[in-house]
Amino acid sequence: MRYSDAGVDIDAADRAKRRIRQLARRTFNPRVLREVGAFGGFFAIDDLPRDAALVSSVDGVGTKLKIAFALNRHNTVGADLVNHCVNDIAVHGATPLFFLDYVASGRLKPEVVTGIVSGIAEACRANACALIGGETAEMPGFYPDDEYDLAGCIVGWVSRSRIIDGSGIVPGDVVIGLASAGLHTNGYSLARRVLLDQAGLNLDAVLPELGRTLGDALLAPHRCCWPIIKALLELKSGATTTRGRRAGAGKNGVLKGLAHITGGGLTDNPPRILPTGCKMQIELGSWPVPPIFPVIASLGSVPQDDMLRTFNMGIGMILVTTEADLDAVARVLRKRREAFWQIGRIVRGGRGVEYT
Amino acid sequence: MRYSDAGVDIDAADRAKRRIRQLARRTFNPRVLREVGAFGGFFAIDDLPRDAALVSSVDGVGTKLKIAFALNRHNTVGADLVNHCVNDIAVHGATPLFFLDYVASGRLKPEVVTGIVSGIAEACRANACALIGGETAEMPGFYPDDEYDLAGCIVGWVSRSRIIDGSGIVPGDVVIGLASAGLHTNGYSLARRVLLDQAGLNLDAVLPELGRTLGDALLAPHRCCWPIIKALLELKSGATTTRGRRAGAGKNGVLKGLAHITGGGLTDNPPRILPTGCKMQIELGSWPVPPIFPVIASLGSVPQDDMLRTFNMGIGMILVTTEADLDAVARVLRKRREAFWQIGRIVRGGRGVEYT
Repeated sequence: MRYSDAGVDIDAADRAKRRIRQLARRTFNPRVLREVGAFGGFFAIDDLPRDAALVSSVDGVGTKLKIAFALNRHNTVGADLVNHCVNDIAVHGATPLFFLDYVASGRLKPEVVTGIVSGIAEACRANACALIGGETAEMPGFYPDDEYDLAGCIVGWVSRSRIIDGSGIVPGDVVIGLASAGLHTNGYSLARRVLLDQAGLNLDAVLPELGRTLGDALLAPHRCCWPIIKALLELKSGATTTRGRRAGAGKNGVLKGLAHITGGGLTDNPPRILPTGCKMQIELGSWPVPPIFPVIASLGSVPQDDMLRTFNMGIGMILVTTEADLDAVARVLRKRREAFWQIGRIVRGGRGVEYT
Repeated sequence: MRYSDAGVDIDAADRAKRRIRQLARRTFNPRVLREVGAFGGFFAIDDLPRDAALVSSVDGVGTKLKIAFALNRHNTVGADLVNHCVNDIAVHGATPLFFLDYVASGRLKPEVVTGIVSGIAEACRANACALIGGETAEMPGFYPDDEYDLAGCIVGWVSRSRIIDGSGIVPGDVVIGLASAGLHTNGYSLARRVLLDQAGLNLDAVLPELGRTLGDALLAPHRCCWPIIKALLELKSGATTTRGRRAGAGKNGVLKGLAHITGGGLTDNPPRILPTGCKMQIELGSWPVPPIFPVIASLGSVPQDDMLRTFNMGIGMILVTTEADLDAVARVLRKRREAFWQIGRIVRGGRGVEYT
């Protein structure tokens, strides 16, 4: 018996790895000290300020991958992965530095793997993030031949004095929601169960409510909020400068807190940034919920509590700012044609979300 | 339908996450700026030297996990994952800083997940590496209920002037092999196919050649070489200091190159550190091959070429040093009771491994 008889084709893996190396190289910048291929990826940090902290996050795409398998479309899940990770560190005010990916499949199909990695590399480039490493694991008998899992790790940086963590949030602050592009990467177990298993819908079906195929709606990639957050980080806080503080990000900028709406939905993510004694009131109906969510709720008779604790409901990111800075923030968002709504307020109360 | 009906139990996940946070906290040091639980993990780097480069790597455990599933033993795969990643950056002379893990399962069993993460945290502690983040994904219908995949990402640092990359290797240099603890994390697809599927062996069977159960032999954790590499990095090179260079690691230390023997086995890993014009001659028979490898070779009639390109064959790590430094290196290895053998030499030739 040879190794290839056991389901592992090292030569096919080598071909895919050569192509992956080309894709990764396009994301490189002068900080990348070596090409992908050594045992580790090298990254220079000598131009970071002295008080820089590294901020990192790891994530996967979850069962959204099942939609990609069914549609045999593998070039969008890379953007899901990278954008999710970028958002996870952007909420702390962190700038992306580098990314590493993990792709595990039953049988390595070079065209599938390079499709996945080209999506990763493209999303990395869009965020000036270098793809400096990755693992492509062939695990026969572990994953079905046509399936794979996908995870990734991002490392970025923020000046320690400019970390955004919600600690400055006080009652009276304003809650802004930025639009999501759909389910992003959360709630797919429930969505698939309701739409595909229970209602028996076909991914190719065009749903009138959606105006496109169900598959297209479900596969819409996770939106990256880093460009808009970056622009807002440059903004001087009127509220704080009148009290003589330095302008800039973190405690002195217009962004007091940012919550990425991921697993746990609108209900469980905002508390992660709320200080003791602060409750977030979210006014249902203050933004247009995209049609995919009511479709899931009605076809599956899903209680509203579960919808709100599972899905982003059309809000991909929550920003907390002061009343005094609201106009300035709104101006930047409008200038960048960002879809946003004032969806609530911070009030006195236990750390949590209250719907009104 | 509620979210828990779709196979995702957020409350069970929350319980597991609380326990994971406790486990992670034990790995923390003053560089960790926040507790696990925010969207990203924070790590201070202000005490690193100005010329520090970050070195990072991502990896999984591969189909070795199938052995853990079969034995329902989940506290060793964490060490496999961490030690593999630590070795991947240690070969470049890098000191571990922090680690993030990804655990994806069909149905999240808190006791299984905390078993996995306690293994990860323990191995992190042993390497003074902080576990600052992780993702625990419940993916019903994607993984069987009792199965999971496991991947992780490590970030470490090395002074740019002390990066070990094999570039100083020249013909005449000596090749030393450090003992592995077994298959480590590579070759399990072939091993399982031969031992379990083809030969029909039971994991509980005690094989006389092995002196223990097959399961114990196959589940032996990946050995971490960082402590011994760290000790060798302190060693002054006699060869280089006589030419007036600075003592220390990298190009001035006794370690000219290090190859972690992972996927691709003894044949495909050493070329990753060989400069043009250098061939590595490895003398078969110069070290005792652990019995698990001949058992696989004979039961599966696996050609020697495939054995050497798949498995580490008892050599977990390869060190390249000069003849002049060999005694000093050997003294440190012996003092630390490290099992090692001089297994070959660097000769003139194309980049590759030649067996003699």
